Amino acid sequence: MGNNYFNRDDRDTKFLLFEHLKVEKLLEYEAFKDFTNEDFSMIVDEALKVCIQVLGPALQDGDKIGAQFNDGEVTVPESFHDCWRIMAENGWISTGNSPEYGGQGLPQVVSGLVSELFTGANLAMMTYPGLAIGAGRLIETFGTEKEKALFVEKMYTGVWAGTMCLTEADAGSDNGYLLTKATPDPDSDDPLVYKIQGTKCFITAGQHDLTENIIHLLIARIEGAPAGTRGISLFIVPKIWVNPDGSLGEPNDVICSGIEHKMGIKGSATATLNFGESGNCRGILLGEPNTGMRKMFQMMNEARIGTGIQAMGTAASAYDVARQYAKERIQGPPFTNRKAPRVPIIQHEDVRRMLMNLKAGTEAMRAFAGKLFFLLDIAENDPDEAERNNAERQVDLVTPLIKSYCSDFGYDLCRDAMQVMGGVGYSNEFPVEQYARDSKILSIWEGINYIQSLDLVGRKLALEGGKVFQDWLQQALAYAEANKDDSDFAIDFDLFAKTAQVIGEFAQTYIQQFGEGGNMRLIALTSNRFLDCFAEVYMGQLMLEQGVIARDKLKEIDPETSDGIFYRGKVETARFYCRNIMTKVFSRVEPLRVKDTSAIDIPEEAF
Amino acid sequence: MGNNYFNRDDRDTKFLLFEHLKVEKLLEYEAFKDFTNEDFSMIVDEALKVCIQVLGPALQDGDKIGAQFNDGEVTVPESFHDCWRIMAENGWISTGNSPEYGGQGLPQVVSGLVSELFTGANLAMMTYPGLAIGAGRLIETFGTEKEKALFVEKMYTGVWAGTMCLTEADAGSDNGYLLTKATPDPDSDDPLVYKIQGTKCFITAGQHDLTENIIHLLIARIEGAPAGTRGISLFIVPKIWVNPDGSLGEPNDVICSGIEHKMGIKGSATATLNFGESGNCRGILLGEPNTGMRKMFQMMNEARIGTGIQAMGTAASAYDVARQYAKERIQGPPFTNRKAPRVPIIQHEDVRRMLMNLKAGTEAMRAFAGKLFFLLDIAENDPDEAERNNAERQVDLVTPLIKSYCSDFGYDLCRDAMQVMGGVGYSNEFPVEQYARDSKILSIWEGINYIQSLDLVGRKLALEGGKVFQDWLQQALAYAEANKDDSDFAIDFDLFAKTAQVIGEFAQTYIQQFGEGGNMRLIALTSNRFLDCFAEVYMGQLMLEQGVIARDKLKEIDPETSDGIFYRGKVETARFYCRNIMTKVFSRVEPLRVKDTSAIDIPEEAF
Repeated sequence: MGNNYFNRDDRDTKFLLFEHLKVEKLLEYEAFKDFTNEDFSMIVDEALKVCIQVLGPALQDGDKIGAQFNDGEVTVPESFHDCWRIMAENGWISTGNSPEYGGQGLPQVVSGLVSELFTGANLAMMTYPGLAIGAGRLIETFGTEKEKALFVEKMYTGVWAGTMCLTEADAGSDNGYLLTKATPDPDSDDPLVYKIQGTKCFITAGQHDLTENIIHLLIARIEGAPAGTRGISLFIVPKIWVNPDGSLGEPNDVICSGIEHKMGIKGSATATLNFGESGNCRGILLGEPNTGMRKMFQMMNEARIGTGIQAMGTAASAYDVARQYAKERIQGPPFTNRKAPRVPIIQHEDVRRMLMNLKAGTEAMRAFAGKLFFLLDIAENDPDEAERNNAERQVDLVTPLIKSYCSDFGYDLCRDAMQVMGGVGYSNEFPVEQYARDSKILSIWEGINYIQSLDLVGRKLALEGGKVFQDWLQQALAYAEANKDDSDFAIDFDLFAKTAQVIGEFAQTYIQQFGEGGNMRLIALTSNRFLDCFAEVYMGQLMLEQGVIARDKLKEIDPETSDGIFYRGKVETARFYCRNIMTKVFSRVEPLRVKDTSAIDIPEEAF
Repeated sequence: MGNNYFNRDDRDTKFLLFEHLKVEKLLEYEAFKDFTNEDFSMIVDEALKVCIQVLGPALQDGDKIGAQFNDGEVTVPESFHDCWRIMAENGWISTGNSPEYGGQGLPQVVSGLVSELFTGANLAMMTYPGLAIGAGRLIETFGTEKEKALFVEKMYTGVWAGTMCLTEADAGSDNGYLLTKATPDPDSDDPLVYKIQGTKCFITAGQHDLTENIIHLLIARIEGAPAGTRGISLFIVPKIWVNPDGSLGEPNDVICSGIEHKMGIKGSATATLNFGESGNCRGILLGEPNTGMRKMFQMMNEARIGTGIQAMGTAASAYDVARQYAKERIQGPPFTNRKAPRVPIIQHEDVRRMLMNLKAGTEAMRAFAGKLFFLLDIAENDPDEAERNNAERQVDLVTPLIKSYCSDFGYDLCRDAMQVMGGVGYSNEFPVEQYARDSKILSIWEGINYIQSLDLVGRKLALEGGKVFQDWLQQALAYAEANKDDSDFAIDFDLFAKTAQVIGEFAQTYIQQFGEGGNMRLIALTSNRFLDCFAEVYMGQLMLEQGVIARDKLKEIDPETSDGIFYRGKVETARFYCRNIMTKVFSRVEPLRVKDTSAIDIPEEAF
């Protein structure tokens, strides 16, 4: 085991759970009736210990030793085996999953915020349980009783791992063009068993030695099925065949032909897998034929919020290292008195600005992710149908935002953390540069960010004929209006109102472009910017809500206590967010305002 | 030798030299009278060949093999030795230096734009000749005839290498606190010879096996000298002592105790050097005692523009790889017709936006660097004193901008290049992720970016009582006013006028803060943003100048010729720059407008 650099203070997580979102609402639901707030709090504390004692110390092994490919097999660092074993033994692999299959059954909001800690401590390592759970959830949701009994518990409890096999060399963002095919297996009595043939690449956690078996969830086209995404089916393809009694059978003709050498998450094997090279690969059809992509999409919301969490968690860890270093490193006198003694660099204004950017940025993203998971819990569990629907439509609207925005912003924040630390931030003694490299994958996987922005402008804005979006916009403007005279946040509510109006302006311009004589390409050209703006304003409201709560609490307590300092910090953080981050909206809207199409007017040969 | 991915099209470089800056002006100067425009053009062509045949193919060796430390010695990849040898043999090490000492004597603007190509092809490799030249220039500028004769030509021609030894563990940005000391050498007849004792760290190119000797330029305090930067002297400390006849003497008690493991430029050894551990390290005082920092600063402008060039060159190389990939990679139907066949991804709007960001960003930075080098040539060579002074004051004003802005923006652009390429951009098959990692150092070395912004607001704005800045601002506003009715760039000149006004607003607010009752810390807190804004507007004018030139040329030629396509591309690039990049100014000014001090109001313990 190596050094641990993971050093999260969970005060903000608990503020979010108990003071902002007030998760006790969830305790009324049947699914969570056996929990208490104290349970949730204790679980966060215990998760932190796992990070500090187990996942954090393995972080640099993942980077320096990495996943090693040798003749079809992949080995991961010894410390990753320790992580897996300890997490499995203590139920940490499936905190949010059904107790029926070995999960802890926590609300998504608690499980999600715990996963921030885990992925923030060791993103590469956490890809293995993450994929096992994701694949297991697909089987739990769409499988037959027999399939569920065979696979799910073993995947939730760390006996077996899992993957999602989507990408092919010629079908990345473009799954509809996949070439992997499935044909009914003539040798099997079971009509659900197919022969699989094809090659998948960029498969995260695709091969490793953590578990005796890996359950691949694979998309393929059944011979004769329609072209495009409507002819894609989903299959369970175990690395080692599983007998009806649950025992392991023979190897299933799944060959790992190599792993990627990449910028980061080197401890996570990104594999190329050849299925059925010898004609002996068997898969079990999961659900109806030709419904594979729909099933994948049904699971997508959680995966996308999860990617946002990974980005936020990694950036928050970079912040933790940088803030600690900045308090200890002494360099240079203050700007306002060049003859005074040198001070810790946290007292230098620009260092402070960068740390504040990290603090405000990660806290805003944490609030965003927490809010969405909380809404998912309501959508899945509230006894009132209207409540469930209302929560679900809110999640649907903004899920593309969290994946795309956090993955881009998280990477940028890691840059600030390096910059705070200077040359030391560039060296790999500290893991800050590793956090940057690790987190870069997040803007790429789970649907590249452009796809997210097209989902937003192509589907989400149109939900219920635009009503879901308009409802959000109207409540945002009303929130700003109701608080415009706030004595502590007047500037900030004013900026919030103005930036919310920009969101409305974006949508209005889009509606014009969709109409006659409009330029649809202008929408696609600015969709990424719209997404970023929308995310920043959405988070602006959450930060204002937090700032107001903190301000009110300060009226009741001593500002010099640790809670007092936390609340004072939160008030300034909310202000910083509104004035420094949310205001990016004003620049981003400019190309739309002047209807800039230069990027598409330019001849292709000029590139 | 590995694969070459360097693939620069030099059309923009030649446009900048011959159509925008019109470097033939320099041919009138005594120093350049033997050159012609054709010579410059040919030199750029030849430099490109060196990149493609020599430097580019060694790029990935630098990353994958790296500089290796073993028992005090450092070896660099074999292909780096080939690079060094070929560059030395062909005079490429010192293109811009005095022919008297073996340099090619090119104008800075040509030499600088050639160095864009070289560092864009292989940043790590180019640190070795870069440091040799930088150290050689110091000796040429400040040394005695004897010192010049002993060292300079050997350093300019690649016989020996060089370094700059500034940083110590406790003195990074804070050179005044260095601990390395110098005492007159009692055993030497030469009063300039001192004994040196101390440890320097983060020394770029500090140890390697490319040359038989390395000439370290080192700062130290002579015993009894004043504290702080005013007591710092500069020394020539050869790794192997040089006898008066130029032959090599005995090793000079300079021990390399290790090299850094770091995010990028792994082929460039970042060394810790112990001087005088055995009490036998000798150095030669360069110039008067206690003038070391002033001497370093006198060389700083070129080094800082050079860092900007490195950042731009690396980002431009990332752009080259991404644009080529985007033209070949087919994925997804067009946004406007989802039923059409799949297209090369360069036709997807968001990919196009990112490529255009890369194109406009790198071309603007190239214009910026070229402009400053051109002004340096005028400042150094024009026979008219007023011309020289005018050029020099312009360079002085904006030099902090180019180092800081380009190093931050270049890194961001590499991110866009990765994003264009998706999972392939994250893998190290292509060098795009390496370009990102390599270029991150640039915001840190040569004075961390915050130092640049303090130089800007603390010194440069105050030049001639603010007149240098005001002169620039007035000409910018006049340029906007004179062109506001331009038929092709009306939107863009309008945006240019508005953003230039923001620069004026920044300066005005700063003046208020410097005055009574002002908040000096607000200046330091926003100085980095001011610097970025100033750079963006400064480059905006250059891009508009280029756009107008290209538009006018288009009136004379067939738009379908390769020149026609280039000019059409330039027109759209100028527009894109003004509408998408320069407009970032509008957001960056907001925290200043609302006088946001949240980052310093927050209690330190809240971090």
